[in-house]
Amino acid sequence: MNNLSALFQPKAIAVVGASGDPSRIGGRPIAYCQRFGFQGTIYPVNPTRDTVQGLPAYPDIDSLPGQADLFVLAIPAAQVPAALERAAAKGARVAVVFSSGFGEVGEAGRQLQAEIDRVVEKTGVRVLGPNTLGIFSNASGIAPTFTTFLEEVKPAQGNLAIVSQSGAYGAHIAMLACKRGIGLNHFVATGNESDISVADCIRHFAGDPTVGVIACYSEGIKDGRAFLEALLAARAAGKPVVLIKVGRSAVGQQAAQSHTASVAGDDVVFDAAIRFAGAERVHTTQAFIDLLYTLSRRPPLGGRRLGVLTMSGGAGVLMADAASDHGLELTPLPEDARAWLDERIPFGSAVNPVDTTAQAVNDMNLVRDALRVMLERGGHDAVVSFFMNWPDNPSIGPALKQAIAEGITGFDDRTVAIAINAGDAVKRDFDKAGMLVFEDPSFAVDALAASARIGERLREPAPQLQALQPAGDDASLAGLDEAETAERMRRAGIPMSALEVAGDADAAAAAADRLGYPVALKILSPDVLHKSDVGGIALNLQDAEAVRQAARRVLDTVARDCPDADLRGLLVAPMAADGTDLILGGRIDPVFGPVVVCGLGGVFVELFNDVAIEIAPVSEDRALAMLRRLKAWPILDGARGRTRADVQAAAAAIAAFSRFIAGHADRLSQAEINPLRVLPEGRGVVGLDGLILAGDGTA
Amino acid sequence: MNNLSALFQPKAIAVVGASGDPSRIGGRPIAYCQRFGFQGTIYPVNPTRDTVQGLPAYPDIDSLPGQADLFVLAIPAAQVPAALERAAAKGARVAVVFSSGFGEVGEAGRQLQAEIDRVVEKTGVRVLGPNTLGIFSNASGIAPTFTTFLEEVKPAQGNLAIVSQSGAYGAHIAMLACKRGIGLNHFVATGNESDISVADCIRHFAGDPTVGVIACYSEGIKDGRAFLEALLAARAAGKPVVLIKVGRSAVGQQAAQSHTASVAGDDVVFDAAIRFAGAERVHTTQAFIDLLYTLSRRPPLGGRRLGVLTMSGGAGVLMADAASDHGLELTPLPEDARAWLDERIPFGSAVNPVDTTAQAVNDMNLVRDALRVMLERGGHDAVVSFFMNWPDNPSIGPALKQAIAEGITGFDDRTVAIAINAGDAVKRDFDKAGMLVFEDPSFAVDALAASARIGERLREPAPQLQALQPAGDDASLAGLDEAETAERMRRAGIPMSALEVAGDADAAAAAADRLGYPVALKILSPDVLHKSDVGGIALNLQDAEAVRQAARRVLDTVARDCPDADLRGLLVAPMAADGTDLILGGRIDPVFGPVVVCGLGGVFVELFNDVAIEIAPVSEDRALAMLRRLKAWPILDGARGRTRADVQAAAAAIAAFSRFIAGHADRLSQAEINPLRVLPEGRGVVGLDGLILAGDGTA
Repeated sequence: MNNLSALFQPKAIAVVGASGDPSRIGGRPIAYCQRFGFQGTIYPVNPTRDTVQGLPAYPDIDSLPGQADLFVLAIPAAQVPAALERAAAKGARVAVVFSSGFGEVGEAGRQLQAEIDRVVEKTGVRVLGPNTLGIFSNASGIAPTFTTFLEEVKPAQGNLAIVSQSGAYGAHIAMLACKRGIGLNHFVATGNESDISVADCIRHFAGDPTVGVIACYSEGIKDGRAFLEALLAARAAGKPVVLIKVGRSAVGQQAAQSHTASVAGDDVVFDAAIRFAGAERVHTTQAFIDLLYTLSRRPPLGGRRLGVLTMSGGAGVLMADAASDHGLELTPLPEDARAWLDERIPFGSAVNPVDTTAQAVNDMNLVRDALRVMLERGGHDAVVSFFMNWPDNPSIGPALKQAIAEGITGFDDRTVAIAINAGDAVKRDFDKAGMLVFEDPSFAVDALAASARIGERLREPAPQLQALQPAGDDASLAGLDEAETAERMRRAGIPMSALEVAGDADAAAAAADRLGYPVALKILSPDVLHKSDVGGIALNLQDAEAVRQAARRVLDTVARDCPDADLRGLLVAPMAADGTDLILGGRIDPVFGPVVVCGLGGVFVELFNDVAIEIAPVSEDRALAMLRRLKAWPILDGARGRTRADVQAAAAAIAAFSRFIAGHADRLSQAEINPLRVLPEGRGVVGLDGLILAGDGTA
Repeated sequence: MNNLSALFQPKAIAVVGASGDPSRIGGRPIAYCQRFGFQGTIYPVNPTRDTVQGLPAYPDIDSLPGQADLFVLAIPAAQVPAALERAAAKGARVAVVFSSGFGEVGEAGRQLQAEIDRVVEKTGVRVLGPNTLGIFSNASGIAPTFTTFLEEVKPAQGNLAIVSQSGAYGAHIAMLACKRGIGLNHFVATGNESDISVADCIRHFAGDPTVGVIACYSEGIKDGRAFLEALLAARAAGKPVVLIKVGRSAVGQQAAQSHTASVAGDDVVFDAAIRFAGAERVHTTQAFIDLLYTLSRRPPLGGRRLGVLTMSGGAGVLMADAASDHGLELTPLPEDARAWLDERIPFGSAVNPVDTTAQAVNDMNLVRDALRVMLERGGHDAVVSFFMNWPDNPSIGPALKQAIAEGITGFDDRTVAIAINAGDAVKRDFDKAGMLVFEDPSFAVDALAASARIGERLREPAPQLQALQPAGDDASLAGLDEAETAERMRRAGIPMSALEVAGDADAAAAAADRLGYPVALKILSPDVLHKSDVGGIALNLQDAEAVRQAARRVLDTVARDCPDADLRGLLVAPMAADGTDLILGGRIDPVFGPVVVCGLGGVFVELFNDVAIEIAPVSEDRALAMLRRLKAWPILDGARGRTRADVQAAAAAIAAFSRFIAGHADRLSQAEINPLRVLPEGRGVVGLDGLILAGDGTA
């Protein structure tokens, strides 16, 4: 039994602050529950009335004649904590708190919200909100919500579940979905998320057999790992999750923070997390609705083969362009099928796009036959077509509908979408005849492409979200110098350059003798950051005498120019062989925890932002996939006569580094290996320099 | 008087192949011309009827009782050339040829179309089509077209002119525009463009004072220079041109070619050409209509400062993200204005986005006042707002409309857009109250951003499309070797490395003595392409003896390994100083003519496709702008402690190279300088190697 069952299937609902006016905030939940057929008991609580909307009312919570497992609180914020306690005593398992004036309005509100947290902890009552628009669950008519969208539309039953942090935007989406003819199952607005989060709801939907598609609107995730676990649960259940997360831009993030108490987080990390968990992100309302519609009607596409059927060459090319943008394949029809079509449409085209030209107006069988040939012989996973405003035309619309319906009969495993400009009733008619209906041909292709991506992801083996087990040692990572850092990295399994610390010139020469020539020298000091700028580095020293001279010069120069620096001696390291330099970075994202980033050193990261980012830890396979995602991958891969780098060793190092980050998530804020030199294939990698910033942000 | 005046303002229209049935191809032009109030004479030509749709009909062209300046030909393709000749004798200045079966259907059709060309040349009659849907000109009711969209909608008068190569898609756009409430001025489908092209129509619109906004749909431009000249004419007239050109992708280009006789051309060059001419390209029907609507209602935005007003924080962030994607600035309100608003909306936000929260439902003055403050104090060029489905709600819709109308009063120089979900009548109501109305908040921002871009471009000084004057010399560019190529480039004003050709080792040493050491040697042979692979290169030779030895080695090695190669001796060149390498490329695009491309050498071009492309020739200023557009620009610019390269000299070399390309457009297909070494600032550039492929494609 899922812990949110009282929210989605309460036996009795008490409405505290109940109103006799069904258009008031305290009145709507009662009106809606009655209208949508809620079968349980409803207890209005109102100190001044005997009945509310035809139901017996009670002056306060304590006076309720029976238990209620769901309480609606539509009362001033200050009264909420006490009411929650009284509700707990009357059987409450969950409370839907409409009241605003909490975390979203400054310090006093935050303190009041903390009071709610204390009651939750003490009583075990779960809280939706505060500052929530509430919840609507269609099958059982549970509607403790004051949204107005339920006045505008009567949602059909269906498989779509919506969870939204924003009540207003979530309700807007729900209304658009209903108007589009998508059957709505659940709608939940999570508001301030003092307890029940978007992740909790997604996890519930994953386990609810009546849910087929999950829509999520988020402004900011607080617990990224819980969010990912919820997405993975949906993925394991084979349910597509489509989400819109605002706050992509810096301005948007600021706005998101002024709007709720959420942290918008780093959007790049969010994208990496979403990709990891297999969810699909959209950026506009239109794309959101188009994709939800597609997934609510048809399973995700089985592949990327798209057929395009058009009556206007122009629109055909338009759809072909859109398909190409998304990497869909316009697989051509086989020769004989093409020849057959060519004979039917001498002025058209039988390749793909198949163009019947306006000739189809006079002979709708063309549409039927073209569709059938494409589905039968073209092996297209989906066919998209553009019929302009024909469906609205009373003399050709019905014939067109019949032609399409006949053409697609027997191909239930495929998806056929049409783009038309027509009235709502006509669109619904065509939809009912078994095809997906869109307005804009490009958007139809967008939605099919998203469906294909989702299908691919759901067919892939799901990744594991590894638990964050602290590494065996619990030593602090604060204040490590280069030598100590390298030692930590080495123990974590990352091949680091050999390195010795020498106190003076003679010790440096002795170290160089042990390490082998040529060597490099570097001043060892936590206070000298840009070592080459102050003459703190000497490279390519060929013998002991050269090391001695360079060591004296480096020590003298730095001592003279940085009189206040804490000089701890010299680092001596063998010069590394030539190779390709990677940068590895790791950090603890405030939302999603440890992440690992890699890219080619130098301008590739700096100017082209050519990096791959993943939730840490990653396996060697995923690390290799990161490298392959880089645009600069051919440089590693030995393209165009280059030497192939030891990418397998690089992947192993990235994986080890990512485990180090994840294993020390409690103790570090950032770590870096820069550069990790990747030698030619078979010769491994070597980290030349490392940096660890401890959890409190100091080196 | 523009040469298309007979097309847009005929005095008399003859319809050859006239039908008494107003729904037939030969019937519609007559019915439409009557319905839309054409004041001139209409002459139906029909061999079997005395009257057609109430008008006296004539058996053939010769029998017409008077002259007609516009002829419609709705007759079989084979009869068209002869009919054109007869029409010319009866005063035809332009013919609208509906007939299909020409260039779009293979060789026989192409020959028939060539017959039309001959008649055009002989008689001077201009031809629209063949295979055209025709033309509609709203103000004077000229409607020689068989489009069906005029049955669906009655276009309002307005400032939008549409020209489309595809009749079907063009009519679809026209219909959507009319449904959106955009006033339609002209609609022209150019069909096969045997004579009158999209460019001709744009040029006409540029000079037509009743046209304010030009919409263009293209599948492929045949004469790129004429197209650019037309766009520049529109730009000079201050008229925005919005265009959709399909065939972006390889598959799309194939489809475009199977659809019409057009060449889709290189899409990257097309984008460069569009940018040059200041037009705005869109990629979806939705974006097309949204932008046409915006520009038909309001002048292009005066700047990029956007105010966002929202009732739902979520939608506010969504719009802020979209604005950020486009580089719009969400400038904050000044402190005092913010304080004033903060007091009014304690739970909302007064920054930007301004979020009134749903509180506005109870107090619509909030919307009015917020709008006014934003326009008055925020200095926003545009304000965009999201009101969900409120306008549809009879209890708040009218109040909302009034509040907005009052809020924007007095700010006619600014643009206010709202996104709403509402019925068409309600949307029209709000539109009439002075604001732009959209469905999707993201799309509203997209359209405003496009308007801002267009505004910026129209305020910039227009570039000159330079005439392609052949260079003074008329020598062939075929078969040039490196030394000859370098000499040509040098004469064109590009600093090329000094270079001597030596026949043997002693001559090479003598040349090196003259050039100064160190030098490089390179085998000179048109047959050896990858010179370093066959030992054909020796670098960094310090004295005469080293040159002699290397020369013998190179000559012997290449002679041994490439026995069939035509060995013409050795190139001797001084080693170039260190610098940053550019690649310059030029080619003659089949559509737009000479173009020039530049990028940083090596992986930047190869992996990141980091190139800038322009119509040639370019000025030094435009060349510098090309360099600045490169992502790798900071490498040239001396960022992060790098040495700044001599970018001014590089720009001068690019400009000179582009003049060379343009000046030899009649004789070359491609040219390249790779690398052009850019030395540190003040020290100039030097081209180390050049290549010219002559016009027939041979080196």
